[in-house]
Amino acid sequence: MSVLVVGSIALDSIKTPTADHRELLGGSATYGAVAASFFSPVNLVAIVGEDFPKAHIEYFQARKIDLTGLQIVPGKTFRWAGEYHEDMNTRTTLSTDLNVFEHFTPKLPPAYAGAEIVLLGNIGPDLQNHVLDQMKRPRFVIADTMNLWINIAKPELLRLLPRVDMLVLNDEEARQLTGEKNLITAGRKLRELGPKYIALKKGEHGCLLFGENEFFTCGAFPLESIFDPTGAGDTFVGALAGYLAANCTEGEITFQHLRRAVVHGSVLASFNVEDFSLERLRKVTPEELDGRYDHFRAMTAFHA
Amino acid sequence: MSVLVVGSIALDSIKTPTADHRELLGGSATYGAVAASFFSPVNLVAIVGEDFPKAHIEYFQARKIDLTGLQIVPGKTFRWAGEYHEDMNTRTTLSTDLNVFEHFTPKLPPAYAGAEIVLLGNIGPDLQNHVLDQMKRPRFVIADTMNLWINIAKPELLRLLPRVDMLVLNDEEARQLTGEKNLITAGRKLRELGPKYIALKKGEHGCLLFGENEFFTCGAFPLESIFDPTGAGDTFVGALAGYLAANCTEGEITFQHLRRAVVHGSVLASFNVEDFSLERLRKVTPEELDGRYDHFRAMTAFHA
Repeated sequence: MSVLVVGSIALDSIKTPTADHRELLGGSATYGAVAASFFSPVNLVAIVGEDFPKAHIEYFQARKIDLTGLQIVPGKTFRWAGEYHEDMNTRTTLSTDLNVFEHFTPKLPPAYAGAEIVLLGNIGPDLQNHVLDQMKRPRFVIADTMNLWINIAKPELLRLLPRVDMLVLNDEEARQLTGEKNLITAGRKLRELGPKYIALKKGEHGCLLFGENEFFTCGAFPLESIFDPTGAGDTFVGALAGYLAANCTEGEITFQHLRRAVVHGSVLASFNVEDFSLERLRKVTPEELDGRYDHFRAMTAFHA
Repeated sequence: MSVLVVGSIALDSIKTPTADHRELLGGSATYGAVAASFFSPVNLVAIVGEDFPKAHIEYFQARKIDLTGLQIVPGKTFRWAGEYHEDMNTRTTLSTDLNVFEHFTPKLPPAYAGAEIVLLGNIGPDLQNHVLDQMKRPRFVIADTMNLWINIAKPELLRLLPRVDMLVLNDEEARQLTGEKNLITAGRKLRELGPKYIALKKGEHGCLLFGENEFFTCGAFPLESIFDPTGAGDTFVGALAGYLAANCTEGEITFQHLRRAVVHGSVLASFNVEDFSLERLRKVTPEELDGRYDHFRAMTAFHA
């Protein structure tokens, strides 16, 4: 089963305390699609300008990502520039040039409309809603979001939530959207807004997964050095979606499927932060991924 | 096998945004000893004044805590008063009246000197060192500490660390003692200071356990309401020590024992915060404890 991934493609310029990189491949759809492609076929819907490097297109193709839904239009590709501070946890956006992304309307090729697993990557909730408007009956819809949309597009986001099966967001966003300090209460209140499941990301502290009378707490893979956290959240949710597409081909998607999907998401994201842009993801082998999953499993087990 | 618990006994006055309680039973030895007593016999070394309520003594006795090492001396019992802020995560000390605790010298009754599992509860590292000076060859020594000792008694603390098997501290204290932001690096550096194992508490985010080439990440039991976090850390480490005493009667204490000890510590601590002082611990039944342990196990498992 394939995953439909909709989101942004960007050229990112990223400064950290130790490095400065320009025009790296980035964007929520990029990380999400590449991450999902470790597990399942991917159909991509996104937009780039005519300046988008051919090498990146070829990389997507090499990952067997279907590009029928990729719009290549006159103009420049979306650019984002940001700077990470000393602790690598906080960042400042230096510039955002939407370029062709400003007028992006996600349009599903006919072959995509029957997609079963849908990842609405981090883009405006109006666009996320527009994608769902074009779909038949997806089996499982995952939506990512961020503080920006909670600030400037909350009504559209609230309209989206009852339409998705799982919302993915981080701890600060969960607090912002619910007004609740306590993350367990925030998770419960987010479910009341519509999604059946909430995946609440806590960075170095791992992730909480909320379902109806079901709860899963998952640590983060221990890392001493984080070179570039950009795209970690998109990688997490992309791997999560890809895992479901590969492992839930029949029957219901259960909470147990989701637990394992979350762990696979955490594990792939832990590779992503080890190098800039998608440099580490480009090199991860299936054996490395399985190895770290097994390692993580051994690290978290306590009962024979 | 019994646990030797050394620490403070206090009468705590605690304000929270919703309540105000005076002269509650508290102190690191109190929580530690009561928590350990859920698992194993306990030998207590501490000091109180002649004003210490008889009902508290009787409570210790009812928990089968050996009080041969409890010094009851002329004067007033240690008093502490604190206020928790809106988020229940930060607190301000309103007053500290050491009283008889000011001249406390922990003195081990002869029968305690051969103790195998030792919990050096959160008191000054000079006193913790003094306890170890009186001991034969304890099998496993656990030391708790806090920011105060890192600030005012760091040399004594550094002298203690090579003498203990496990150091227990929270994330802020780990950062403070090592100067490292990254908690994985901090855990490694703490081990370099002497302890074979580090249990790094992260409150609502659970706990990390570091050993030589071994690592365990453990979430926190999900709670929506925290009535009083006082003593949660002491309860955690007390249960951890008691679990080891009960379950490691022979042979080596392995990392697998420590994982389960950490989970039992987390689970008992999750009860403690549900009410003031030891009110919740007074009521917890072995069945409730086992039930929450099983619940927690089910919540964290992801692989069949």
